[in-house]
Amino acid sequence: MKKEKIKIGWVGVGRRGTGMLKNVVAEMCAQVGDVEITVLCDKYQPAVEGGLEILREKGCPEPIVTNNYQDVLDNPDIDAIVIMTPWEGRAEMAIQAMRAGKYVGIEVGCAMDLKECYDLIEVYEETGVPVMMLENCCYDRREMMAYNLYEQGLLGEVVHCDGAYGHELPKAELFNEIEEGRHYRIKHYIHRNCEQYPTHELGPISKLLRLNRGNKMLTLSSFASKSCGLKQYAKDHLGEDSPYANMDYKQGDIINTIITCVNGVTIHLCLDTTLPRSYYSRNFTVRGTKGMVSEEGNTVIFDDMPLPYYEGFTEGAKNKNNEEEMFKLYDHPLHKEYQAKGTKEGHGGMDWLVMRAFIESVKNGTNTPIDAYDTALWLSIGSLSEASIAQGGAPVAVPDFTKGKWLNREPIVEGKYCLDKVCVDESVAIY
Amino acid sequence: MKKEKIKIGWVGVGRRGTGMLKNVVAEMCAQVGDVEITVLCDKYQPAVEGGLEILREKGCPEPIVTNNYQDVLDNPDIDAIVIMTPWEGRAEMAIQAMRAGKYVGIEVGCAMDLKECYDLIEVYEETGVPVMMLENCCYDRREMMAYNLYEQGLLGEVVHCDGAYGHELPKAELFNEIEEGRHYRIKHYIHRNCEQYPTHELGPISKLLRLNRGNKMLTLSSFASKSCGLKQYAKDHLGEDSPYANMDYKQGDIINTIITCVNGVTIHLCLDTTLPRSYYSRNFTVRGTKGMVSEEGNTVIFDDMPLPYYEGFTEGAKNKNNEEEMFKLYDHPLHKEYQAKGTKEGHGGMDWLVMRAFIESVKNGTNTPIDAYDTALWLSIGSLSEASIAQGGAPVAVPDFTKGKWLNREPIVEGKYCLDKVCVDESVAIY
Repeated sequence: MKKEKIKIGWVGVGRRGTGMLKNVVAEMCAQVGDVEITVLCDKYQPAVEGGLEILREKGCPEPIVTNNYQDVLDNPDIDAIVIMTPWEGRAEMAIQAMRAGKYVGIEVGCAMDLKECYDLIEVYEETGVPVMMLENCCYDRREMMAYNLYEQGLLGEVVHCDGAYGHELPKAELFNEIEEGRHYRIKHYIHRNCEQYPTHELGPISKLLRLNRGNKMLTLSSFASKSCGLKQYAKDHLGEDSPYANMDYKQGDIINTIITCVNGVTIHLCLDTTLPRSYYSRNFTVRGTKGMVSEEGNTVIFDDMPLPYYEGFTEGAKNKNNEEEMFKLYDHPLHKEYQAKGTKEGHGGMDWLVMRAFIESVKNGTNTPIDAYDTALWLSIGSLSEASIAQGGAPVAVPDFTKGKWLNREPIVEGKYCLDKVCVDESVAIY
Repeated sequence: MKKEKIKIGWVGVGRRGTGMLKNVVAEMCAQVGDVEITVLCDKYQPAVEGGLEILREKGCPEPIVTNNYQDVLDNPDIDAIVIMTPWEGRAEMAIQAMRAGKYVGIEVGCAMDLKECYDLIEVYEETGVPVMMLENCCYDRREMMAYNLYEQGLLGEVVHCDGAYGHELPKAELFNEIEEGRHYRIKHYIHRNCEQYPTHELGPISKLLRLNRGNKMLTLSSFASKSCGLKQYAKDHLGEDSPYANMDYKQGDIINTIITCVNGVTIHLCLDTTLPRSYYSRNFTVRGTKGMVSEEGNTVIFDDMPLPYYEGFTEGAKNKNNEEEMFKLYDHPLHKEYQAKGTKEGHGGMDWLVMRAFIESVKNGTNTPIDAYDTALWLSIGSLSEASIAQGGAPVAVPDFTKGKWLNREPIVEGKYCLDKVCVDESVAIY
């Protein structure tokens, strides 16, 4: 039943597609040997050639090259399709892949409309073919440590999580997209106003809070600041006469979103990409009755910790910055195993781990650990946020894509899955 | 016209009243000599005796002592009344003071109902007697540096601010309030669910955003997590059978609030007092088109800063922690002057500065730099938040206490006021 080696159709060789191919999948072809890229697809010829070059350099088998997605869908050898194309149309491409009977991995992002999410679920339930958003941050070290702490009860009952995408986008590159006619993100900043990029923070929070598995989102409220950052940057760096200095951008500079869950937990998200900021942060924060994980504080704290790590009334910074020490004590077993075997490139290992999770699922013929319901839910956030912002922050209902199955779906035991194979249909391994 | 020395009626000698008396006002009596406590009032006899002892130790004149607020109001010698009583009833006490023709300073907090705020304004407009919320954090070093940076145009156009009260309250003390029958805060946690304590962060943000002076709040939306922290603490530390482990607390552990302003700026506030957390933070954050001030990042950054302090695409922490350096370059002139003269106790100087601002206003017979409209607005947040939470986060309209005067009220020039006396009716000095 288990496949020793799987064949992938790789669609999209832009910045992200290239990075994943180079740092992760081509490495796996070469080192692990259980995967090969059978078809490589991109509409843009230089992109596909770049991808080909990478595979050749690693000594991987020569893939079929095409600019037509249908060729990927029609290829009978392919077990799985990985979609690394721009945001728009990913759900539709995933649906086509499921109908063709191929496992689907899609790069992170949001659907443009809720209907895409419903359609994805409809076809998933009809075909039974797994689809997985390849949310790498679900596999980052801090987030995985938080799963582990939670599993061990060290955080107590979790009542609130924060997350953000605090990353000033390289603006020159954004504006270059216009020049180059590629329009990956800039069109979204011109025409839309919403939490367009929530999954790096929401994915791990969603896993930890067991959304779709005993818990579900209830409402979402979203708020946009005015939009000034891109225009000001264009004025200052491209000149007052630049068309980009005289263009209106609908996207607010800072988007705050609050999600309430049926179990009373709240989630706060912030999208922060167009104003000057000096450091990247996902502001990953888990607040429980017995402990806190805080990326901004670079700390993990428990209620019953001895000084100097914990004192309720302490002010100042002395209780920050113990994270390195905490990693040593509480690293997630999967991450520990991964480190022991030698970490890989690609965002500190998380790219490697998320791709392994996908590949192992394909090899084992099991469901993916981030499944269709998670994928649909995460894809839906952009549209929900857009609707709430358009209504001045009015709470909007979050769909239940499981149609009630969340009440009975078993949680994935984050501290155990993938290692001791407790959850056979959630299996993942790193080599 | 200007008074050389003013006489104060001091009402409330609890924890906060004692601290302010000891570290600030008794010191001013002794060192500056332009103020004296003429009447000292508290219902609780040991409290008033403690205050008396402090004044004696400092060699200040012996005040009249009373447990009856009416004695303070009736005293003809008194120029100003400082109210340091519990949260409830402060607006009413301030109104009585204004009617008695006394300047009023009130400790930070929220009104219990909007009507109190409207009444405060009605009486202020009728009597013309200034009232000032003594929001010390408006005078803290980081916040004042931000005013200065903003005045100099170094932050560009401000589009968003964050603030928080991230401070785990000492729980043993909270529960002791019940034992002692004093009930300062705990009753509010048992019976209410709202952003009860926003002004430490909102005060400075409000000043910087020039609310009531060319800008105003439009809507407020507030969200509460479930309430678990106090109960869990009581279970773990007082025992399963403790009445506090079996009590229901309405107050959510984490309250997130989003305020939108007419000029398109958004404000995000977070109240975070009942769960384990390891460090105090007001999360003071100002985001402009040309710069950022971030307490959590311990940093100030400008768009055009040379490396290593700024690089749009940089990830990681290397662009954090330059705040000390920035203080040297951009300290607010008032804070610089204050430091040159030797800092005082009381929360790093801000207690001293806010009290000086109040006292100078009284001496000069001018309006207070935090005025009746600011005070009413800040007092109103708790009730607005309570209403929004009760409606699932629906945005509620924020009253315009100025009744349109905000359109024409001149901004206080934060970088200049108090020092060169540009704004005669906003004067404040530190000695």
